Amino acid sequence: MDVPRILDAINSPADLKVLTNEELAILASEIRQEIVATTSVTGGHVASSLGAVDIIVALESLLDMPRDRVVFDVGHQSYAHKLLTGRREAFKTLRTYGGISGFTKPTESVYDVHFSGHASDSLSIATGLAKARQLKGTHEKVVAVIGDASLAGGMAFEALNYMGNEQLPLVIILNDNEMSISRNVGALMKHLGNIRANNHYREARESLQEAMEAGGPVTRGFLSLGKNMKESLKQMVIPHSMLFEALGIVCTAPIDGHNIAELRDILSLVLEMDGPALVHVVTRKGEGYEPARRDPEAFHGTGPYDIATGNAIKKAAKHPTYTEVFGAALADEAAHDADVVAITAAMTGGTGLKTFAAEFPERFVDVGIAEEQAVGMAAGLAAGGKKPVAALYSTFMQRAVDQMIIDCALPDANVVFALDRAGLVGDDGPTHHGVFDMVYMRMVPHMRMLAPSDEAELACALHTALALPGPVALRYPRGEAEGAVLPDRPEVLEVGKSRVVRAGDDVALLAFGRMVGQAKKAAELLTADGIECRVVDMRWVKPLDEEAIAEAARTRLVVTLEEGVISGGAGEGVLEVLARQGATVPAVALGIPDQFVGQGPVSQLFADLGLDAEGIATTVRARLK
Amino acid sequence: MDVPRILDAINSPADLKVLTNEELAILASEIRQEIVATTSVTGGHVASSLGAVDIIVALESLLDMPRDRVVFDVGHQSYAHKLLTGRREAFKTLRTYGGISGFTKPTESVYDVHFSGHASDSLSIATGLAKARQLKGTHEKVVAVIGDASLAGGMAFEALNYMGNEQLPLVIILNDNEMSISRNVGALMKHLGNIRANNHYREARESLQEAMEAGGPVTRGFLSLGKNMKESLKQMVIPHSMLFEALGIVCTAPIDGHNIAELRDILSLVLEMDGPALVHVVTRKGEGYEPARRDPEAFHGTGPYDIATGNAIKKAAKHPTYTEVFGAALADEAAHDADVVAITAAMTGGTGLKTFAAEFPERFVDVGIAEEQAVGMAAGLAAGGKKPVAALYSTFMQRAVDQMIIDCALPDANVVFALDRAGLVGDDGPTHHGVFDMVYMRMVPHMRMLAPSDEAELACALHTALALPGPVALRYPRGEAEGAVLPDRPEVLEVGKSRVVRAGDDVALLAFGRMVGQAKKAAELLTADGIECRVVDMRWVKPLDEEAIAEAARTRLVVTLEEGVISGGAGEGVLEVLARQGATVPAVALGIPDQFVGQGPVSQLFADLGLDAEGIATTVRARLK
Repeated sequence: MDVPRILDAINSPADLKVLTNEELAILASEIRQEIVATTSVTGGHVASSLGAVDIIVALESLLDMPRDRVVFDVGHQSYAHKLLTGRREAFKTLRTYGGISGFTKPTESVYDVHFSGHASDSLSIATGLAKARQLKGTHEKVVAVIGDASLAGGMAFEALNYMGNEQLPLVIILNDNEMSISRNVGALMKHLGNIRANNHYREARESLQEAMEAGGPVTRGFLSLGKNMKESLKQMVIPHSMLFEALGIVCTAPIDGHNIAELRDILSLVLEMDGPALVHVVTRKGEGYEPARRDPEAFHGTGPYDIATGNAIKKAAKHPTYTEVFGAALADEAAHDADVVAITAAMTGGTGLKTFAAEFPERFVDVGIAEEQAVGMAAGLAAGGKKPVAALYSTFMQRAVDQMIIDCALPDANVVFALDRAGLVGDDGPTHHGVFDMVYMRMVPHMRMLAPSDEAELACALHTALALPGPVALRYPRGEAEGAVLPDRPEVLEVGKSRVVRAGDDVALLAFGRMVGQAKKAAELLTADGIECRVVDMRWVKPLDEEAIAEAARTRLVVTLEEGVISGGAGEGVLEVLARQGATVPAVALGIPDQFVGQGPVSQLFADLGLDAEGIATTVRARLK
Repeated sequence: MDVPRILDAINSPADLKVLTNEELAILASEIRQEIVATTSVTGGHVASSLGAVDIIVALESLLDMPRDRVVFDVGHQSYAHKLLTGRREAFKTLRTYGGISGFTKPTESVYDVHFSGHASDSLSIATGLAKARQLKGTHEKVVAVIGDASLAGGMAFEALNYMGNEQLPLVIILNDNEMSISRNVGALMKHLGNIRANNHYREARESLQEAMEAGGPVTRGFLSLGKNMKESLKQMVIPHSMLFEALGIVCTAPIDGHNIAELRDILSLVLEMDGPALVHVVTRKGEGYEPARRDPEAFHGTGPYDIATGNAIKKAAKHPTYTEVFGAALADEAAHDADVVAITAAMTGGTGLKTFAAEFPERFVDVGIAEEQAVGMAAGLAAGGKKPVAALYSTFMQRAVDQMIIDCALPDANVVFALDRAGLVGDDGPTHHGVFDMVYMRMVPHMRMLAPSDEAELACALHTALALPGPVALRYPRGEAEGAVLPDRPEVLEVGKSRVVRAGDDVALLAFGRMVGQAKKAAELLTADGIECRVVDMRWVKPLDEEAIAEAARTRLVVTLEEGVISGGAGEGVLEVLARQGATVPAVALGIPDQFVGQGPVSQLFADLGLDAEGIATTVRARLK
């Protein structure tokens, strides 16, 4: 017989109010089981979500939600929050097509404040909420929950600098998982590590307990008196971080992030403050699930897994991923050219750079979650005679558009931008699709851009990018590649030169990147209707192959195909070339229409958007009528 | 009879080596006179350049340039550097068409490391140079000169975080002009102010002198021994900033930035270190020229002025500037709507917000040089029920593209982006032209964008943006507006609806923003040739007026006109609409071609690019042939 779960009685955070610390701890354990049960089927961000469960239970038991606002940075640590805010049943659909998001999402729940997914933005959002609160004269609490790695992003620092100066009333919960120091990215993390090393939990707790005992049951009311009390609290929770204090932010000593009683004690005090305070909470990634504790990196973002062993349940992959091919190709380039330097922004594994990092540790740079620094430093390396390759997810490259323009393109610097996860990424949804890169790259003078259509093309594209002077970007998708045979040695591709994949006189399909595969299938469907398609792998987003476009204009219809937004994309570039050439051939630009695309299997999303072979064929048939 | 100047004998920094401290001080004074003499004619960044003269003279007298690399942040403080590096004669052409740049520019001189102009990037560039130096095994010095305001940018923090962790060998000269504390933007500046208040120059100097005396003439050699010596230096120049120390960066006590002997003493010590060090130098903006000392803000960026009085020599302006009209219009909106909040990133005067700040201090937010925070906080204010207006220069909005997409557009937040200095800005050149905004705005779902063609349209565009739900951007140029009569009360413009400015059947000129004026003039030129032009003020960059485009397709030629890059711009959007409508009319998209545009009078740049009335008419005539 099943013991009834506390979790099943929780329909909103208000239901937490009646629970004791002990019951909350049991609830936390049930939440962990639920997270493991669901993610073992759906996949997801397991380690960080498990690590944050106690923080979320303790915090939300003290708040009046949704009036009080909790901003989760990145948000893949928010699964417990989802389970506490009326999404217990829906949670089973986590990260599936039509299901609930793996991140906080305001259109999904009134308890979610912002679309999380891009690190380091929570503090800025929180400053806005706190300022709005001041202007309205209301008294809701504003809390941001942020990981130590996210705190190193420049945007977070800008927010700290602002809130410290303005003394905005908000609470930052720094979810500091001890792993970070081993990763060794950033002086800030070393600083946090030193604080942890010097200040044992017990001290913090004892000093707090002393203060509580001295103040007795009136401590809380006492603290709520306001401004002067901030100083009292400051004395209480010693010692602090000189970095945050220098910025005007009160900082607690590190506390145990898996002790709900302690968390509630400290949080209930800090929530009464009327200036910015940072609660330094130390957690363990994967807490409560042994396989995730043992290997938190494997359980950062994972697919389905076997609960008993933690072993991944993998679909048999026929081909390597684009990421793997890139990683191997870059290591190969580095072996042949001592000037090649690889830069990642906290995504060594994600961008396929583990081999490179192991083989060429001196030439491997991990700047942490800091894309501006990644691209700015790349410009400096180029100015110093090196050939830096900044390997970033397409969606996170959005953080460094200005640095790409001003620091790299304007001086015509030898910087290669390797944009992984370009196009639709699947389950991570709208914050992670890389659908804008062709636009913000092609708008920039001096920039060149390649969109390889398979893994052999990717190896050649990288080789070409490193061989060319000036800034060059390449984009390639997430996931399994096409199964093309890799060249022994990659060749240098001719700049702005496409290649014809299939001959045909009725319609020209000008395809970029992975869309070449769809174009070939569409051509086969159409040939059955007697429509012969010329299929061109455009290879270059910039410069465009104007000869190939002129050739295409001699058919009855020109169709451009790209895995990116239509507005400002490569297709519009082709239309501009056609206009300049004086062509009057009918044309249609296919790509992502003017909407944010949801989560789900990429093949499903392609079909929904009319970008699969069938959709393309349908468009062509309609336009030829 | 003129006394011969030392300056006239300086052709490169190597020539500084033979000069005594006293002679260097005289040289600094001559440089100041030269800066005032030139900028009184050309205009320029006077106050900050005068403030940095002694730093530059002292620093470059100690270096072996161009082997040693000096990275100037922003770079408008670099005039003395230009005068010392073989550009004494060329300096007279400062900021003029075809003349030398107001910023450092590698294509202008081998002594210039990067295209400066966008704040806070110098430290990232320096980390790249320092890392390249490590990889090459060479020993050139890497120095970054950065102002206190720039240090608050997130990118600078990311670089500090990286260099502190890696202990990269580079020197940061923090040019801290005391003004900043009165401006009160940022906790970091307060922190610097506290350091200044607690540590008088004398103390620093005395403690250094003591150390020097103790060490005698061998101090320098002693220090060059390396790593351990860092600790010695640390002891020497007490006390330090706990913020920088927490990040692993050695920091000197504040020193007098106008005492060349002291600067050289400290710098020669710090340059021998093999880890990151920050030299805290206190300067006065405008030092050495009384009018600039008295009013450094007026002399931040100035036009020509009378040397004796400091009074601006202004061309009589017929009309108010777009910036002034925007500022007055926003204050008016705020008077009618208590939810309006204005946000600036250290550009209160530049974005016309002085009146707003004075009238609505509670609703005025200056985040400092921190565009990511400006846009992220705007999203938070919107989530809190407010109507934030982020007023930013178009070129600096590039720093917050990701925040615009993820934090504002994805949640459909009520954020207005008021993009000042959109299009060509004139004398500031390529780093400051705002030519990409239409591209990166129109690529984003949920976003709407207006490009008002005169100041009356600007007032209505702002009113419309505030009336609409969701994110809305408006762009308007730098400088004098068109002289249109402002409406008593602005009206709400219909979304995606253009207005016909002139009727004509031969050619349709579809113009955005200020290009409407050029289109009208071009139409007059063409009518003399018997070519009748329809001129349309498109008003909306997004959504485009598809009816107006269909109408235009009934002429013999459609011409789009925009003050922004063609690649991905509004013109390509029009071409996409035409393609979708099945139109086969010849079309041409005019705008900024695929090149970085130099400095000079906007009218001259327009003519060079074929975007003035004559250029447009020429293109139309050629295409109609």
